[in-house]
Amino acid sequence: MTDLEQQLAFIIEIDKLKAVYRQTTVKEDKDRYENSAEHSWHITLTAQLLQDYAEQPVDISRVVKMLLIHDIIEIDAGDLFAFAASQDHEQQALKEEKAAQRLFGLLPAAQHEHYKALWFEFEEAKTNDAQFAKAMDRILPLVQNMNNQGGSWAKHKISQSQVLERNKYLEFMAPKLWQYVLEQTNTAVAKGWLL
Amino acid sequence: MTDLEQQLAFIIEIDKLKAVYRQTTVKEDKDRYENSAEHSWHITLTAQLLQDYAEQPVDISRVVKMLLIHDIIEIDAGDLFAFAASQDHEQQALKEEKAAQRLFGLLPAAQHEHYKALWFEFEEAKTNDAQFAKAMDRILPLVQNMNNQGGSWAKHKISQSQVLERNKYLEFMAPKLWQYVLEQTNTAVAKGWLL
Repeated sequence: MTDLEQQLAFIIEIDKLKAVYRQTTVKEDKDRYENSAEHSWHITLTAQLLQDYAEQPVDISRVVKMLLIHDIIEIDAGDLFAFAASQDHEQQALKEEKAAQRLFGLLPAAQHEHYKALWFEFEEAKTNDAQFAKAMDRILPLVQNMNNQGGSWAKHKISQSQVLERNKYLEFMAPKLWQYVLEQTNTAVAKGWLL
Repeated sequence: MTDLEQQLAFIIEIDKLKAVYRQTTVKEDKDRYENSAEHSWHITLTAQLLQDYAEQPVDISRVVKMLLIHDIIEIDAGDLFAFAASQDHEQQALKEEKAAQRLFGLLPAAQHEHYKALWFEFEEAKTNDAQFAKAMDRILPLVQNMNNQGGSWAKHKISQSQVLERNKYLEFMAPKLWQYVLEQTNTAVAKGWLL
């Protein structure tokens, strides 16, 4: 196969991300479940728009690239709800590694290595770029739930401390957004959307 | 309103792009219609992956930013089928300008101007970045249709010359991809998917 054939095979394969559904719903579309492809668009643009809140140095073009590919592994591994039990998260991690191998493996060798490494960096969340990317991935469902009467939180009886733990990267990376998350979760508790 | 409040209002508003449906279908999800949010993700990543085919200088970070926002105006203006009549395209252009004003106007002033200018640049398609972005926006439906027995082409009785006209930016911007488009549309004619 030529490089172009491999790249097109990947581009066709990732169409399947549009069929992976999350717990968040799309209020404006009859509250149907959101899929991971449209979610990936939404957070990538969110990161672009909120980049100036990063108080640690981040390379936004790397953040954007990470966010564009961060959920592709769900094509094989499925979407696990953020607040699932920890042993489920461990099993999921194994499935996702296999998925990264297969999916990025469709690309020509250099791109395969590049994107797989970028995905591992995102998962590990040790670099600034990865932490900012994770922070965006986590603040957006909060914004969506706050705009949709608690959304997936209310349905799954999630607590404020769970949401704050999910958003912890913001405290160091983007303190103004962390402040916003604190206020919003207080409001959510007051409204009965979070325990 | 603070800058953050304005940015979040925009981020919430653009959730509506997930409810704007296109003519292309998602084969892997029971052939349902594709929405413009997931399409935006797919072409942004496609541009990232195929950037090396650009034989004119392009700034991929600008291309990516353009593609992330290029369809947002459809929230107010709706999606017009690529092969609609030319007077429909003229009316659509007016609706889209108003939409750009309202939607990007939700952002703080500096971002409002920045993103509106970027969207106009995309629409005008005079710069290399805009032409490469447009080319990506146009080659992807071809890839999807070729992978789905002609998809929206077959349904709307589209001709090869219409598809080549839509993809014309590739001839100069990315000759190898243009070559691919020529071959694919020949195949589509042979299969009866294009007139």
